[in-house]
Amino acid sequence: MGGMPGATDQTLRPFLWRAQKMFPDREVVSRTHEGRERYTYSEYGARVAQLANALAGAGIEDGDRVGTFCWNHHRHFEAYFAVPSMGAQLHTINPLLPDHHIQYIVENAADRLLFVDPSLVEKLAGAYDEDAFESVEQFVVMGSEVPDTPLENVTDYESFVGGEETDYDWPNLPEEQPAGMCYTSGTTGKPKGVEYTQQMLWSHTMASLPEAGLDLRSSDVVMPVVPMFHVNAWGFPFSTTAAGAKHVYPGPSPTPEDLATLIEEEGVTITAGVPTVWLGLLEYLAENDADMSSLERIVIGGSAAPKSVIRRFDEEYDVTVTHAWGMTEMAPLGTVANLKPGMESLPKEEQYEKQAKQGLLVPGLEMRVVDDDGEEVPWNGEDFGELWVRGPWVTTEYFERPEANEEDFEVPAGGASGQSADEVSGVWLKTGDVVTVDPEGYVKIVDRAKDVIKSGGEWISSVELENALMANDNVAEATVVGVPHERWQERPVAFVVPTRGTDEDSLKAELIEMVEDEFPKWWAPDEVVFIEEVPKTATGKFDKKVLREQYDDQSLVEGKTPDDAAPDAND
Amino acid sequence: MGGMPGATDQTLRPFLWRAQKMFPDREVVSRTHEGRERYTYSEYGARVAQLANALAGAGIEDGDRVGTFCWNHHRHFEAYFAVPSMGAQLHTINPLLPDHHIQYIVENAADRLLFVDPSLVEKLAGAYDEDAFESVEQFVVMGSEVPDTPLENVTDYESFVGGEETDYDWPNLPEEQPAGMCYTSGTTGKPKGVEYTQQMLWSHTMASLPEAGLDLRSSDVVMPVVPMFHVNAWGFPFSTTAAGAKHVYPGPSPTPEDLATLIEEEGVTITAGVPTVWLGLLEYLAENDADMSSLERIVIGGSAAPKSVIRRFDEEYDVTVTHAWGMTEMAPLGTVANLKPGMESLPKEEQYEKQAKQGLLVPGLEMRVVDDDGEEVPWNGEDFGELWVRGPWVTTEYFERPEANEEDFEVPAGGASGQSADEVSGVWLKTGDVVTVDPEGYVKIVDRAKDVIKSGGEWISSVELENALMANDNVAEATVVGVPHERWQERPVAFVVPTRGTDEDSLKAELIEMVEDEFPKWWAPDEVVFIEEVPKTATGKFDKKVLREQYDDQSLVEGKTPDDAAPDAND
Repeated sequence: MGGMPGATDQTLRPFLWRAQKMFPDREVVSRTHEGRERYTYSEYGARVAQLANALAGAGIEDGDRVGTFCWNHHRHFEAYFAVPSMGAQLHTINPLLPDHHIQYIVENAADRLLFVDPSLVEKLAGAYDEDAFESVEQFVVMGSEVPDTPLENVTDYESFVGGEETDYDWPNLPEEQPAGMCYTSGTTGKPKGVEYTQQMLWSHTMASLPEAGLDLRSSDVVMPVVPMFHVNAWGFPFSTTAAGAKHVYPGPSPTPEDLATLIEEEGVTITAGVPTVWLGLLEYLAENDADMSSLERIVIGGSAAPKSVIRRFDEEYDVTVTHAWGMTEMAPLGTVANLKPGMESLPKEEQYEKQAKQGLLVPGLEMRVVDDDGEEVPWNGEDFGELWVRGPWVTTEYFERPEANEEDFEVPAGGASGQSADEVSGVWLKTGDVVTVDPEGYVKIVDRAKDVIKSGGEWISSVELENALMANDNVAEATVVGVPHERWQERPVAFVVPTRGTDEDSLKAELIEMVEDEFPKWWAPDEVVFIEEVPKTATGKFDKKVLREQYDDQSLVEGKTPDDAAPDAND
Repeated sequence: MGGMPGATDQTLRPFLWRAQKMFPDREVVSRTHEGRERYTYSEYGARVAQLANALAGAGIEDGDRVGTFCWNHHRHFEAYFAVPSMGAQLHTINPLLPDHHIQYIVENAADRLLFVDPSLVEKLAGAYDEDAFESVEQFVVMGSEVPDTPLENVTDYESFVGGEETDYDWPNLPEEQPAGMCYTSGTTGKPKGVEYTQQMLWSHTMASLPEAGLDLRSSDVVMPVVPMFHVNAWGFPFSTTAAGAKHVYPGPSPTPEDLATLIEEEGVTITAGVPTVWLGLLEYLAENDADMSSLERIVIGGSAAPKSVIRRFDEEYDVTVTHAWGMTEMAPLGTVANLKPGMESLPKEEQYEKQAKQGLLVPGLEMRVVDDDGEEVPWNGEDFGELWVRGPWVTTEYFERPEANEEDFEVPAGGASGQSADEVSGVWLKTGDVVTVDPEGYVKIVDRAKDVIKSGGEWISSVELENALMANDNVAEATVVGVPHERWQERPVAFVVPTRGTDEDSLKAELIEMVEDEFPKWWAPDEVVFIEEVPKTATGKFDKKVLREQYDDQSLVEGKTPDDAAPDAND
């Protein structure tokens, strides 16, 4: 005390304390390899303490990293509070990554202990590499027995924590203490590590609770289907605890039937995941009886929520889709497409239109949308720019990646007086997303910065062109990339996989005409190239990099743009 | 960047930015000396920038204190964001304090500029003292003209801000920057200053938004009746802005009729203030027609919300009373008496019982309830202890009052490794409130620590005895204090003002019998002293200090407690 005024630090501990003391009887339900388990916050708190004691006994100290290689279940949730609250750092690893990425990540993070699901032991053993895993002293399998495995120093979780004291003297941690870590796997290069401090997780949790965030209440029953290795399952394990709500964890590889059963039997009110999960659930529900009446909201993120999914859940199940956008770098919550006061009286289609955007920035953050010169573009729903964000749960750097920091962050000149370089406030994260903002502040992602086509000083959204092309019944897949052009800088070229038996010439004419109809004339691709398949990345996304390398050929576009189709002819 | 990971600092700026950009058309309504004014967040933002430019022009710099001596209106609200966001510190002064306290406060804070309401200019001029006000360079009257006053260097607000630019380049402030300041006027000694950093106000704002806080939504219309000089009007100016909700400021000295009119005409959904305001509104509504249908909730704090008020608003107006507790030291939000899931099916009287408690600690804070030895008392709804709290918006010190810091804060031994004494996390604020906590975690204040009567190792609540005594129709006023006792440490003595014409002997017997009926036998006062009036403090509260000094006389209690009425006889 003395010196600058202040308060005690922002850490996760109060959330655990509050749930355990004030909601001792609320439940944590978990579908595991061993069946459905359930216990109360009171028992949860005791097991979290046991886990911390076990980790301390295994030599884990303040600042050490502990990795998890796990799906969504109660043991993983126990690690979520035990590891950071004892002063160590929870590093969630995506088991779907290729082996060489897993090796890089474990080595880069220097994890001392790894928790691993029974069903993922084989995958982990396959990725094991003596050098990359040198820091790892112990493996703990998330169950009550150890499967047959070539891995050494393997314990099962229940033996690991069993017999430990059910109290732990949680330390008073500084808010700068690293508490979590997650790697973002870009489409190019090595994964980049993002560290979450106690303060970042505290802030993200507090921002998730209100209406303008994810609107969590103590009466809610929350089922995160988004994996706990994807940016802390969007923070739900923390925010659900802070709200005193009931947790439902769907376990390893849940089927649509598993999800429907959990919703019905546990009274789930809020669930969350990527669009494909909910398409799967809609298909299942169309064929099967299931009582969805408890379900109020589905938080959709990870990719854009299609308007048709938003409409179907509303019309058929009276469920609101809460479309949200975020990034690993943001822990992850950025925007939520809530309707504003008054919008509930708009025609339903207009409401869906708003809900299909990425939405409004949540309180506590700031954003700008800038063009190539760093100038802000107007919020008119049409002009594009790259989205920059900053705030108390947005990272200002990648772990040990100075070259990426140079590229992906903007440090403002100056800063307040008396601050060292380390303390400069106001650093922007360049999200790499190209967006429009409408006059009401709703953000809509129209492209990735590296995919947007820069033609004659204007930007063309490859994503909008692709969506338009793929709406044609004779198009199986389509992607659009910018090909270098001497005069116009870049021009769009479409790569189209036609459905079997389609006449390519007439399809090409049809597509060009359709684009010219729907968009400014100069958006029309200079060439439509028919291919057999769009190359894909390891995670199944279109790999435009491959196409760009393959078609780095100006002849595709040279001389093809008529002058009257160029953007400056439209001024 | 580099070094410890982290994110950008927590400041108020994003809240202003978000409201201005995303809710440009939401309104700010204000009842002033000049009538009812209204404008939008968009215009609000422009005026906030004008005010910051005017203050900068007047020489206000980073770290300077700017005082306000004002009621609740839009100009005061403009100062709420302009002053802290430019790096200065907003110091709200309570105009109801006695002159010598105002002098002490202005001198202690060294305010450089004072905003003052037209109706308070005379009061301020009366308190003016050349030495105490030496730091004050300028007075700005909150209107468009300067009244006749002996004060010098006086400008009117509209001239002060008029003609200034409507943009301001808000700085990137560090979160430790002092942003606000408020003095708490204890019943004894000089007022103590509490400084709020940007981080504390950011945290308090985020904690106010969710259901477990004050549950603010963008569709709300919020009218803080609690004065803006009382702990930032409980943070509503900040939290309402963060939510994007509509503000209604009731202006100087609103009558119940003013409040009813504003609720009806502006569609107020949430209002907030001390119990007497709502008793006044109930009286008004009983006699007059007013449409209260928009009103959903009244946040009551400052003193305990009587169960009868909670019941009447629910039964007669379908309005939920949200009973909350806090302190100047906590910015102020601590607990909120929300019902838990399932409690809505309890009988109404049981619900009111819960709602009449101070409630559940909000997420992000921690508390303990301790006895004289610092040991935690059980949460059984019966055992008393002093409430200690800590968290990111709870101060850890008073401004320049080391002797008060010694008394009112508990610094834990140690702290995390590597921390200097200044950074020790986990400091507890000793609230001075004596409470019970029930098994569900609801806090109930039973006394102030200095008023609780410590008898034979047990605690007796003076407040509960007083409430019981005052329930007797022949008692006009009653208070109970502990008088020193050789054997029992302290024993209770009741001071009673009888209604006119009451027989004192029979009343005394009746009161003793009633207490022995309702409480443990040893709670019965050793003596009932009849007096003409209970001495009062400047703010109208019972002044027990005066009685304690007057009756520091063991003969009142010596030999009066029969052995079988002492607490250890009841073990």
